This record gives sequence, structure tokens and C-alpha cells, in this order.
Amino acid sequence: MRARIIITLKKGVLDPQGKAVKEALENLGFDQVKGVRVGKVIDVTLDGIREREEAERTVEEMCRRLLANPVIEEFTYEVMGD
Amino acid sequence: MRARIIITLKKGVLDPQGKAVKEALENLGFDQVKGVRVGKVIDVTLDGIREREEAERTVEEMCRRLLANPVIEEFTYEVMGD
Repeated sequence: MRARIIITLKKGVLDPQGKAVKEALENLGFDQVKGVRVGKVIDVTLDGIREREEAERTVEEMCRRLLANPVIEEFTYEVMGD
Repeated sequence: MRARIIITLKKGVLDPQGKAVKEALENLGFDQVKGVRVGKVIDVTLDGIREREEAERTVEEMCRRLLANPVIEEFTYEVMGD
């Protein structure tokens, strides 16, 4: 099983990296850019898990225990077969 | 219009951040983890663009000119209405 986890900053949390990207895009002439937010994508390959529900539980626990900081980040994920 | 851009390392490119995350997950007891790859997600809000095709062209150009490093990274994106 594979999972794609998307971790983004919560609304209202300052994003200096996103601000820097926005300014760089504007400097290149992309003046349509109104906002940029930068997050992480984590692709995980899981071995020995057959059931989608078990994979989802495992990924959810990974996010809660390590991958996402619940104070400033939120996460979504999608589990795919092999 | 909004766009979500996903930037990942090309296959074969070393990913020390992914390796560190994999080891941290293993140390927490997640021994089903076979591989981890870390990439970036960039959410862009575009102003004054009405047509999906124009938004896609703009985002594609942003990726090529600034956001992705074509030597080691590849990108995908999805454009959504407001």
C-alpha cells in the first residue's frame, strides 16, 4: 500500500516561506499571484498491510505522533493500493 | 482560481529528509514503513484569471521558471475554481 500525506499550515499561521515564494513570483512578473502557502507532501510505502482501513489507521497515527504539528499544521491523506 | 502544485524528487534522487522520517517512524514502532519520500506542496491563489486553461498555463510557467528544479524534481498541479 502507498499513502500520500499532505501537511499544510493552519489558516492564520504565518508562512514566511510562502511569502518569499510569492515575492519571487511577483519579481518574475507573475502579478496575478494573490497568495502562496507552502506545505509538505510525504509519500509513504507500507509493507505487509493488506486492508485499506488498516493502512488508513496507520497513516493517521503516523501523522498524529510524528509527521504533523497539531498546533500549527493540519493534514490530509490518501491511501492507494500497490 | 486556486492551484495546488505538488513537487517531488525524481526517482533515483537521494532523499535524506525522507530517510530521516523513515528512521523516526521505525523508531516509533512503525515497522511496516518500507519507504518515505518528502516533497513540497505549494498552494497558489490567482487573481484576475477567468479561464482554467490560462490558469494552467500560468502555473506551468511558474513551476518551470521558479518552483521546481528540473534536474532533480518533477511537478504536477491541479487548478480549481474559486
